[in-house]
Amino acid sequence: MIKNEAYYAVIFTSKHSEQIDGYLEMSNLMETLAKKQKGFMGFESARNDIGITVSYWKTLEDIKNWKQNADHLKAQEKGKKDWYCWYHVRICKVEREYEYVIS
Amino acid sequence: MIKNEAYYAVIFTSKHSEQIDGYLEMSNLMETLAKKQKGFMGFESARNDIGITVSYWKTLEDIKNWKQNADHLKAQEKGKKDWYCWYHVRICKVEREYEYVIS
Repeated sequence: MIKNEAYYAVIFTSKHSEQIDGYLEMSNLMETLAKKQKGFMGFESARNDIGITVSYWKTLEDIKNWKQNADHLKAQEKGKKDWYCWYHVRICKVEREYEYVIS
Repeated sequence: MIKNEAYYAVIFTSKHSEQIDGYLEMSNLMETLAKKQKGFMGFESARNDIGITVSYWKTLEDIKNWKQNADHLKAQEKGKKDWYCWYHVRICKVEREYEYVIS
């Protein structure tokens, strides 16, 4: 996914609290919904001590719309209440990129 | 780590090959060296199916200098030869950010 046009990355880093009942279901639902959002380009995610999810979007407006999506707002509220000790969100403009794939 | 001044994130996503002998030692060494580089602000890392490491830097020049560091060049070469099926590097400008810490 290397693009010629400018695009944006949202870096979401987080640490879970001990109580994560319902988290996985909500996470899967958010993935399904995000994929239907205008401007969504993809995401990558990994977790061990901390979790890092990076989602990619065409415009800042698309990111704002997803943040304000009604179901997503509920998930954010639940996340703050129950699932996360902390999280940090960074909205970034991808300036350049390169990749390596084994030949 | 929320900063008033502009800064940059390098998103490094990767998938390991089956052979990762020596990877952990090199990874630890690179962490030690990166922390000594001018402009280094911090990093976050997680891995399960894929690995995501995000490092933060004051300027694009700092990122370039780290990429060209002699020891780091050796690590990149070894990484391509042995440890990674693929990797993807995105250099990003952090446009804005917010965080949540449990009260």
